[in-house]
Amino acid sequence: MTARELPVLDAPDVACCAPLSVEVLSEPGAETLARQFAALADPVRLRLVSLLATAEGGAICVCDLTDPVGRSQGTVSHHLRILVESGLATSEKRGRNVWYAVVPAALEALRAALATR
Amino acid sequence: MTARELPVLDAPDVACCAPLSVEVLSEPGAETLARQFAALADPVRLRLVSLLATAEGGAICVCDLTDPVGRSQGTVSHHLRILVESGLATSEKRGRNVWYAVVPAALEALRAALATR
Repeated sequence: MTARELPVLDAPDVACCAPLSVEVLSEPGAETLARQFAALADPVRLRLVSLLATAEGGAICVCDLTDPVGRSQGTVSHHLRILVESGLATSEKRGRNVWYAVVPAALEALRAALATR
Repeated sequence: MTARELPVLDAPDVACCAPLSVEVLSEPGAETLARQFAALADPVRLRLVSLLATAEGGAICVCDLTDPVGRSQGTVSHHLRILVESGLATSEKRGRNVWYAVVPAALEALRAALATR
């Protein structure tokens, strides 16, 4: 399954706001968006998002994420938890490991917010 | 002048990276992107970006930004400085006031980084 096949528009909890350049952002909308940008405001988390987004099959085991980012499993799990809590990633238990995937709709919602006129 | 008329592609210092879903982000690329997302990871700054991006004529006086965001001029200036330092906004002295505008190319570079497959 590719990211393109996921329902980008059916994600009311990630698509909070009109583009910043179309109408002035409301305070609640700003709070929601700021939380998601905060999840991306860390180089380790950005590299994790990139590893998830480029993973063959669309998901990757946490056990395969520690080496590429050069951090301990505890640190990687901490960052992954922030990504999941912000709605940018999902996790799934498979056997003894947890697999992670990005939520393309969430990234698309952030892209939409940044659209310029 | 509308945002569309600005040269979106002529901004090498803001377009740091291939989309996160196309190739694994490098560490330097991640540092650069994280700084820009950090600038957006605050609700007041997001509302300021929105006010700048929707401003008639493409720019707005700092004196017209305090009321809409409900913060003191000192606080607003602090947040605007962060936006300018991150490359997401520009400032220009006009008479006794400073005017601010978004840098559409910077927002587009962030959009590009978030593109999904």
